[in-house]
Amino acid sequence: KAGWVVVKSDTVVRDGFVKVEAGMITEVGSGPITGGNVVDHGEGALVPAFVNAHTHLELTGLANKVVADKGFKQWVKDLLKARETAGYDFLQSEAAKGVAQLIESGVVVAGEVSTLGITADLFASSPLSGVWFREILGNRVPEDAVAGNGVRDSCCSFAAHAPHTTAPDVIKELKKLCKARGQVFSIHLAESDEELEFIRTGRGSWGDFLRKRGIDFSSWPIGAKSPVEYLAKTGVLDKGMLAVHLVHADRSDIKLVAESGVKVCLCLRSNARLHGRMPDVVRMVAAGVPLCLGTDSLASVDSLGILDEMAFMSYKFPSIPASVVFAMATENGAKALGVGRRFGTLEPGKTGALVYLPVRASNRADLFDSIVSAGGMQVSVIL
Amino acid sequence: KAGWVVVKSDTVVRDGFVKVEAGMITEVGSGPITGGNVVDHGEGALVPAFVNAHTHLELTGLANKVVADKGFKQWVKDLLKARETAGYDFLQSEAAKGVAQLIESGVVVAGEVSTLGITADLFASSPLSGVWFREILGNRVPEDAVAGNGVRDSCCSFAAHAPHTTAPDVIKELKKLCKARGQVFSIHLAESDEELEFIRTGRGSWGDFLRKRGIDFSSWPIGAKSPVEYLAKTGVLDKGMLAVHLVHADRSDIKLVAESGVKVCLCLRSNARLHGRMPDVVRMVAAGVPLCLGTDSLASVDSLGILDEMAFMSYKFPSIPASVVFAMATENGAKALGVGRRFGTLEPGKTGALVYLPVRASNRADLFDSIVSAGGMQVSVIL
Repeated sequence: KAGWVVVKSDTVVRDGFVKVEAGMITEVGSGPITGGNVVDHGEGALVPAFVNAHTHLELTGLANKVVADKGFKQWVKDLLKARETAGYDFLQSEAAKGVAQLIESGVVVAGEVSTLGITADLFASSPLSGVWFREILGNRVPEDAVAGNGVRDSCCSFAAHAPHTTAPDVIKELKKLCKARGQVFSIHLAESDEELEFIRTGRGSWGDFLRKRGIDFSSWPIGAKSPVEYLAKTGVLDKGMLAVHLVHADRSDIKLVAESGVKVCLCLRSNARLHGRMPDVVRMVAAGVPLCLGTDSLASVDSLGILDEMAFMSYKFPSIPASVVFAMATENGAKALGVGRRFGTLEPGKTGALVYLPVRASNRADLFDSIVSAGGMQVSVIL
Repeated sequence: KAGWVVVKSDTVVRDGFVKVEAGMITEVGSGPITGGNVVDHGEGALVPAFVNAHTHLELTGLANKVVADKGFKQWVKDLLKARETAGYDFLQSEAAKGVAQLIESGVVVAGEVSTLGITADLFASSPLSGVWFREILGNRVPEDAVAGNGVRDSCCSFAAHAPHTTAPDVIKELKKLCKARGQVFSIHLAESDEELEFIRTGRGSWGDFLRKRGIDFSSWPIGAKSPVEYLAKTGVLDKGMLAVHLVHADRSDIKLVAESGVKVCLCLRSNARLHGRMPDVVRMVAAGVPLCLGTDSLASVDSLGILDEMAFMSYKFPSIPASVVFAMATENGAKALGVGRRFGTLEPGKTGALVYLPVRASNRADLFDSIVSAGGMQVSVIL
């Protein structure tokens, strides 16, 4: 029990309780409690565990090792170099610290995107739920992926890196694999100036960069108006798709995204550092795009906490109601990762994954404002 | 707002509120309320509008005109005679009074089964939601039914009368029509001794009765162990089926029903009067059969109120928790009629159809006990 129970953004109970039996929520509400072990968490708020829908735990070890002030392409080059220098053993042990940081900050559900594949065991054995994405770049779907061996169980799925790094045929094939398995497919989309220029013209320094990495793009249908339009032409935009970033999405892109039902994960702090530019969040909210939040990796942000991400969004977009930001950080994230039946709200039938926030509030509007500005606050995670 | 808000059987809020905007619930919970017109209903309970999943409004005019103490077959004969004597005009105007009685008793969602077809317009123009079932007997599906003309819009569906009155081919064809239209199909099942004997042996007086009504049953596959087993053989048992009564369902019948996902509507007061026998409700609850409640018509019960039905069930089966009975009368009923997305609970997103009950309770167990024993209580309906 606690001073407030936020079942979800439109269901908030004063002096409420959440009854958890055998790991599952069986009752919520208020009024006298009889029987069972009652834990009084205090005057603050019990809320659903947060969802970090996009992170790269395998880059945890690169925290503070790559600077962003020389442009995005240089950052990518430095990142790849630092990743090589660090070595897999180091990256793996640091990734475990990333898991701890997620849990401590109240994140229990995550979308972990792994290029190297080194976080698969970690994710599976961690307290995290959600989706481990095996990320594919280049012109070929690895054979073990086609056979389904590269993705080991129901927690795991595929991601394509991005339109400017992964061949359209590969994107289509991966999407098809995910669809057949009933899983979410993810992709970085419309993130950088470099991606935009390359997708529009095929020119710019990105082509050279790809060639150097051995990726031949001569057969790609370059020349779309935007990355979103380019991807729409491949036919992969649907509600089983989680597109990340959308920094460069204009009015018509957002319309395309909204109509297709694509889920969008925003990583605003990462965008600010790497690109100095924000997506058009206000327009996406107005268009009804299902938005959720991610942090990206510690190579581009200072923490893996979603409370920090919520605070940053509210700071950058004060017109978006705090309860809407809260929904992005919980229910929307769980739905985007395909685990909305088990996580994202405190409704009976869902998993008993709760966070207690020691906030103070006199009414519901206050409460959501306090939660959304609680970045950095010490929280308790109840599993 | 009210002293208690029962969002659903596992979500109860003390001193709570339900916010309704443009007919839809947009928020529930507790804590200070700001803005909007606040109506304080009192110390009692706001609950979801009740669901009467099985009634025959066209027989409302036969209230107190047919006695049940000469056996079921005689009751059916008397009923048919009384129905003929009454005339359609009288039955129609009385049916309108039945609608009023439903609404006054807190029922806003109904499963109305009509053999004569005379309640279709009434149902469509009434404040009731739910399903109007056109009921078919005999050996032939009417041509207008096949064309879909006999069932006019999304509110309407088909019912077969019963295994011992409707040919198996007709049952199958109607079920197929309903499935194609995405609608619930309903049937009276395992209600009477007469049905049981006829389905088992083809003997007994029911055969004579059918012959007299011009229904030739020589090609029906009589000889099953039970009506449930007989129907299972036709392949129509699935979760889109609402079976009514199940008075004669033994352990293996209940297993069949539970495994197939069939919804079951109980009309205990009607069963008591017409058959002096109760279904095995305790076993059905234990088996996880999705149970809901109906009254049947005023030709066999004294009221169309579901609170009365709940009270009778609790009286007959005191071991069944009141919160479980409450779920039958609300959420389960809405789901059984295929309107669970709009009715049955007070969750945000659903229709603002509420009932206020002036009960008093000090805790949740008390509260459900008070609600379940509130039969006959004056309630307020909020639409």
